[in-house]
Amino acid sequence: MNVMKPIKHVLADNDVDKLIKNMKSAGFGAKKLAQAVDILEEAIKDEETKLFIGVSGALIPAGMRLLLKDLTDWGDVFVVTGATLVHDLIEAVGEKHYQGNELADDVELNKKGINRIYDVFLPNKGYEELEKWLHTIFDKIKEKYGDKKLSIKDFIYEIGKQVKDEESFLKAIVDKNIPIFCPGIEDSAIGFHYWSWMMKDSKNRLNIDTFEDIKDMMDLAWTSDRSSIFILGGGFPKDFIIQAMQFSPKDHSSGVQINMDREETGGLSGAKLKEGISWGKLGHNAKHVSITADITIVLPFIVTSLKKRLK
Amino acid sequence: MNVMKPIKHVLADNDVDKLIKNMKSAGFGAKKLAQAVDILEEAIKDEETKLFIGVSGALIPAGMRLLLKDLTDWGDVFVVTGATLVHDLIEAVGEKHYQGNELADDVELNKKGINRIYDVFLPNKGYEELEKWLHTIFDKIKEKYGDKKLSIKDFIYEIGKQVKDEESFLKAIVDKNIPIFCPGIEDSAIGFHYWSWMMKDSKNRLNIDTFEDIKDMMDLAWTSDRSSIFILGGGFPKDFIIQAMQFSPKDHSSGVQINMDREETGGLSGAKLKEGISWGKLGHNAKHVSITADITIVLPFIVTSLKKRLK
Amino acid sequence: MNVMKPIKHVLADNDVDKLIKNMKSAGFGAKKLAQAVDILEEAIKDEETKLFIGVSGALIPAGMRLLLKDLTDWGDVFVVTGATLVHDLIEAVGEKHYQGNELADDVELNKKGINRIYDVFLPNKGYEELEKWLHTIFDKIKEKYGDKKLSIKDFIYEIGKQVKDEESFLKAIVDKNIPIFCPGIEDSAIGFHYWSWMMKDSKNRLNIDTFEDIKDMMDLAWTSDRSSIFILGGGFPKDFIIQAMQFSPKDHSSGVQINMDREETGGLSGAKLKEGISWGKLGHNAKHVSITADITIVLPFIVTSLKKRLK
Amino acid sequence: MNVMKPIKHVLADNDVDKLIKNMKSAGFGAKKLAQAVDILEEAIKDEETKLFIGVSGALIPAGMRLLLKDLTDWGDVFVVTGATLVHDLIEAVGEKHYQGNELADDVELNKKGINRIYDVFLPNKGYEELEKWLHTIFDKIKEKYGDKKLSIKDFIYEIGKQVKDEESFLKAIVDKNIPIFCPGIEDSAIGFHYWSWMMKDSKNRLNIDTFEDIKDMMDLAWTSDRSSIFILGGGFPKDFIIQAMQFSPKDHSSGVQINMDREETGGLSGAKLKEGISWGKLGHNAKHVSITADITIVLPFIVTSLKKRLK
Repeated sequence: MNVMKPIKHVLADNDVDKLIKNMKSAGFGAKKLAQAVDILEEAIKDEETKLFIGVSGALIPAGMRLLLKDLTDWGDVFVVTGATLVHDLIEAVGEKHYQGNELADDVELNKKGINRIYDVFLPNKGYEELEKWLHTIFDKIKEKYGDKKLSIKDFIYEIGKQVKDEESFLKAIVDKNIPIFCPGIEDSAIGFHYWSWMMKDSKNRLNIDTFEDIKDMMDLAWTSDRSSIFILGGGFPKDFIIQAMQFSPKDHSSGVQINMDREETGGLSGAKLKEGISWGKLGHNAKHVSITADITIVLPFIVTSLKKRLK
Repeated sequence: MNVMKPIKHVLADNDVDKLIKNMKSAGFGAKKLAQAVDILEEAIKDEETKLFIGVSGALIPAGMRLLLKDLTDWGDVFVVTGATLVHDLIEAVGEKHYQGNELADDVELNKKGINRIYDVFLPNKGYEELEKWLHTIFDKIKEKYGDKKLSIKDFIYEIGKQVKDEESFLKAIVDKNIPIFCPGIEDSAIGFHYWSWMMKDSKNRLNIDTFEDIKDMMDLAWTSDRSSIFILGGGFPKDFIIQAMQFSPKDHSSGVQINMDREETGGLSGAKLKEGISWGKLGHNAKHVSITADITIVLPFIVTSLKKRLK
Repeated sequence: MNVMKPIKHVLADNDVDKLIKNMKSAGFGAKKLAQAVDILEEAIKDEETKLFIGVSGALIPAGMRLLLKDLTDWGDVFVVTGATLVHDLIEAVGEKHYQGNELADDVELNKKGINRIYDVFLPNKGYEELEKWLHTIFDKIKEKYGDKKLSIKDFIYEIGKQVKDEESFLKAIVDKNIPIFCPGIEDSAIGFHYWSWMMKDSKNRLNIDTFEDIKDMMDLAWTSDRSSIFILGGGFPKDFIIQAMQFSPKDHSSGVQINMDREETGGLSGAKLKEGISWGKLGHNAKHVSITADITIVLPFIVTSLKKRLK
Repeated sequence: MNVMKPIKHVLADNDVDKLIKNMKSAGFGAKKLAQAVDILEEAIKDEETKLFIGVSGALIPAGMRLLLKDLTDWGDVFVVTGATLVHDLIEAVGEKHYQGNELADDVELNKKGINRIYDVFLPNKGYEELEKWLHTIFDKIKEKYGDKKLSIKDFIYEIGKQVKDEESFLKAIVDKNIPIFCPGIEDSAIGFHYWSWMMKDSKNRLNIDTFEDIKDMMDLAWTSDRSSIFILGGGFPKDFIIQAMQFSPKDHSSGVQINMDREETGGLSGAKLKEGISWGKLGHNAKHVSITADITIVLPFIVTSLKKRLK
């Protein structure tokens, strides 16, 4: 008991980084948020530590695109959902997400050609423009590769290289030559627009291998003396990042997770990072924190604080 | 569709208030957080608007005491749980809450006399010192009032007047002469320490009327031309604040709620503020936002932003 | 590892009790549900065990009234919210709750005088009839007690004795002479209808003592050689039931909790029962299970299974 | 108001199907559970309705394997996670999941070679035996197909045909010749065991096309005059099932979803089915219900009730 640290009550401070530091001596989510920034700062500052970042959920529709782009300054590996790529590309081709309302009448929205993502609206035109653009890209890839095999990562890179939009998350990753994985990319508008491209001509077929990327991911895992994970959401980006360590002799040295899923229902997304220790996904002494929060609420503060500390 | 506003992606900014303003053009929780600050700012700036603040949950153990004290600069009425008073008084008598660990062994903690509130520890000594202090206060109240009736508010004020600690939330309320209500105060250590005081002497009885405060609360509701609510948590502080309007011809003009309870299970805490419109608790045109978040994560940012705007 | 029991996959069975027994060899919530029925069965069958039942949330509007009445066959002490009493009494005076829709337009509902509780509708007439009836009861209590002190329990009993409806939860409690507590009763329509009764005549005052019931509750706690708790929801019914043990040398021997609140935000409702061990609220060896569920989904199955086992 | 149906309070009944029917006149989750069974019954009884079932989460570790097998009597299309296949295959090769404890020490578990899935334990041996078995299957597929292209569905079928275990979910699907899709299969132990197979010999390569299945899925969507969806969990099984309709002129006619994810954070899993109407994923008049529950708690009752009604 003599080692217990008393709670120090948080003082308001208009400096984001100082305020988060003030929260470190509090409890509950406040403390966890401050711990998360410390863990990430340490991982990023250590040149030997590889930072694996997983992204799922509709973060770009909700306005997090530039913050994700900021993460490309620090992440060594990205694993994302197909939807994340789609949302980024929709904006890259000049379309927009709009502020909407979660209580809107979905029948009326459908009549107007507006798709709802909670309180964000995405007009059909976003998908139409994306489809046209992707078909031209698929044509180019066909021309370049013919029947030669591509991994999903190769395929994403070929798409990313064609993006001109300087605010694009994918363009930033490709420009910096960071490995990006997207298991399950077929389950996204990229997959469905690929299908419509296939339907146009029987020659429209690429040879994209389902399992090829695992080698690269396993190489990244095996060669990481120290690694850290930053899980935004859950789903297969989380799984792919931590399961790679289950099947390697290494484990992640630290980690931060942010989502609002529950652990009691036993799903992977809701599992606290601590559970990963039993699996050998995280090390016995890994520093880890699982924050229960809406990512869009905490990511702006976390990225801001990191930028302050790392510049 | 021509009126739809495109999402503007959030730019990191180390100025809390600017960052929150940046979040206003986003979606999901980010947007709601920014809307909340605007609603509160408007309510506080308007001298005609009475701001009712409800506080539940273990906010003081988690380090929110000074932020709650900040709220006393703006709130016109407070409704709190007995536990909130207890946590404030434990610190006022010189005891502390400590940073702990949610994974601690509860049997071991019990053997050491340490009570766990998620990841915050509170040694038994906190209750022991509080009990001694409260017994002296109860003696004083007995001396002053004898068998005369007190309302719960009177009783809280008598306690609050004896607090010396300048960081105390309750002292700030009492010093500023702000109405404070605590329905269900008996369900708290104040109630149980009152019981131990009763056990010491058969004369140890105060005459604290259960229903007396409702008159004052209803007067406050009836005389509010404009009112706003700020609900931290839920429970009966929320209920008391909004139900007062159900039974008055008025309704609240705006409101902010922060908690993580679910609406699907039908409990009052999880109900979005919108539901209150059907009851006449909120007005048809009330601006309202219900944020799904851990209060300890968002309150520091909200208070900071408000202080910046209101100074 | 040689003692680990393999998961046995659940077999469908149209006998509720058998199906729940099948679920005992599963994992996650399925197992917890089955454990809960076992814990409750054991507590009820043991004549020496006092069963404390806490009820919060809008269970009666959601159709749980007869199941709560079933619980009066087994519970030795009830702690309920004022709203639970109100919902029971609204039906007792002949009014109804109605099946509604959580997506209804709250402004339109308000214009029609319909109050929404998630997807249940309660017309204003429910409150109007309750108010008329309660005023007649308050008159009777005034006549009987004059200025004499009542505890909240006495007050509830006086109301309950006047209920004629054989389906009433409160009538069942009163008829069986079971202790019932309702800290915070003032924060309910009973409180607000008491206020309107006070407004009618300056003599309309009862002398209801806020703290009187704690003695009875503490007596029940101190005299319980073995006790068990069944927490439906959380809030102050949970707190009152477990905090009584914190301030007694005893502790609860077993417990079941059902709600959907989160532990990460540090509130009492979301805390798992295990946390209570650190406080001395539950014993070191207490069997306990905290189910994460909508009470209206699991209570029908739990009560059914218990009725089967206990008849 | 004259059309409003009063809540009828649920009567305990040891007949699962009758009890669920009793719950239909209640509110909250109770009503939704009853509606779900009705929607599924109608979809299954109608020979023209194709039922798409999505499965995610660790349902088999939690004891739901035989209930999932029951669903193969009714489902016309399955979309599952790779983990679901892995869990099924681990049991098919003779290994087991075990009842564990969510509070276990993860470091100790790791030392013992036990992996934790909330309160279920899975020893490493499960993965070791699976790996050996899968390598023999991959050899057989290589022998049969050489460099010929397989879709993921073909690949799963080749695996499923080798399963002998009569309790296997996958074997039941394959035996009944039901289409099964698993976008993202590479993100699972199947993917990682495929990698270790690749590492053994440079000839160990199959040609499994990432996008091939979308054609079949779209054909199923386009040829569905009426379709219904049953979403257990969320993730990409949900996405694949509903996005197929976004890109077809059809839409799903009815649907049931069970999970505990939140809609406020904007992720697809937590979105209520209603949101899908804006996207053209569900029809304007689709009957749909989204249940907020732990699947392991409600699935046993739903399957039991359906078996009763459909036999």
